[in-house]
Amino acid sequence: MIEEKGILFVLSGPSGVGKGTVRKALFEKNINLKYSISATTRKPRAGEIDGVDYFFKTREEFEQMIKENKLLEWAEFVGNYYGTPIDYVKNTINAGQDVFLEIEVQGAMQVRKAFPEAVLIFLIPPSLEELKNRIIGRGTETEDIVKDRLETAKVEIEMMSAYDYVVVNDEVEKACKRIEAIVEAEHYRRDRVEVSYKKLLEVE
Amino acid sequence: MIEEKGILFVLSGPSGVGKGTVRKALFEKNINLKYSISATTRKPRAGEIDGVDYFFKTREEFEQMIKENKLLEWAEFVGNYYGTPIDYVKNTINAGQDVFLEIEVQGAMQVRKAFPEAVLIFLIPPSLEELKNRIIGRGTETEDIVKDRLETAKVEIEMMSAYDYVVVNDEVEKACKRIEAIVEAEHYRRDRVEVSYKKLLEVE
Repeated sequence: MIEEKGILFVLSGPSGVGKGTVRKALFEKNINLKYSISATTRKPRAGEIDGVDYFFKTREEFEQMIKENKLLEWAEFVGNYYGTPIDYVKNTINAGQDVFLEIEVQGAMQVRKAFPEAVLIFLIPPSLEELKNRIIGRGTETEDIVKDRLETAKVEIEMMSAYDYVVVNDEVEKACKRIEAIVEAEHYRRDRVEVSYKKLLEVE
Repeated sequence: MIEEKGILFVLSGPSGVGKGTVRKALFEKNINLKYSISATTRKPRAGEIDGVDYFFKTREEFEQMIKENKLLEWAEFVGNYYGTPIDYVKNTINAGQDVFLEIEVQGAMQVRKAFPEAVLIFLIPPSLEELKNRIIGRGTETEDIVKDRLETAKVEIEMMSAYDYVVVNDEVEKACKRIEAIVEAEHYRRDRVEVSYKKLLEVE
């Protein structure tokens, strides 16, 4: 009805909460969001494809992108770099298309500063016990790393305060539905549409 | 999952936009909202039932309620009083149940002041032409009143700035879906749930 810029949505949350699973499920059903693929220096896990799940980079390549300001956000996490290429995000939003990022909490804070109008969604586990089970269940980490990641997660949960929304990941399908409601509702926020509608209704 | 207070949602918008129709359609499908019935001194229209559509009051009765501070908001509109009994709203919200008000724009501004945490939704017509057709189509008003109401509507549309959301009433069913997304998403807003979730996850 009216010309509107896209919205940048950021899904983040503590380590092990299931951000990747929720993001994948969301993209299997919703075609109105563009997923922005992150760059990373971590090794691909089984089944992950370069250019689909991540852009897999060497440390040298990644540090070159940082120097050239080609990343909207980046972070070092468990010894690896993760970051979001900036051009794709800006071009997509300006074309009126929503962009959806799934990133770690340090990255989300950088987006908050660089794009104050971004909508930040914090994914939380139903309980700390459940989070521990998920970190163990992934089966890719040693006992010490599980302990470390649980401690990191507690610190990360305290960062909830910087977010716009909090969504519980009790079931992936339910978490997706909640995020879909947020994405839709944000398009009706008065501050985003007021000028266009007042013009349309000839009161400005 | 967590104990949460209800939210007060207020649907308003210019005269003739179809607030009542949207509200009725919404309540036919959604049972998680409590509709707060307004008190009014205007005469019942065909089919309207006292205690269901409105509490129909005499001017004396209504002015007594104003004096006794028993109204969350009230307004005089086209020679009649309209208002919202305050006790019902407060009790329902404190019991964890959402309340939904459908009121005129003057009343919505009073709610904004009395309940800053209320969520205000502004319903707009797809165009001014469409609004005029709807005012005429109702068939209950003279030509002069139609003109007056259209001028009033223009002034009312400028009051959009005080609202949280803007929803277009192009089709009743679509407007309802948009409002449902807003109602759901508001329950995930971080400022509403942060304290409870931090306690649940033992970081506070």
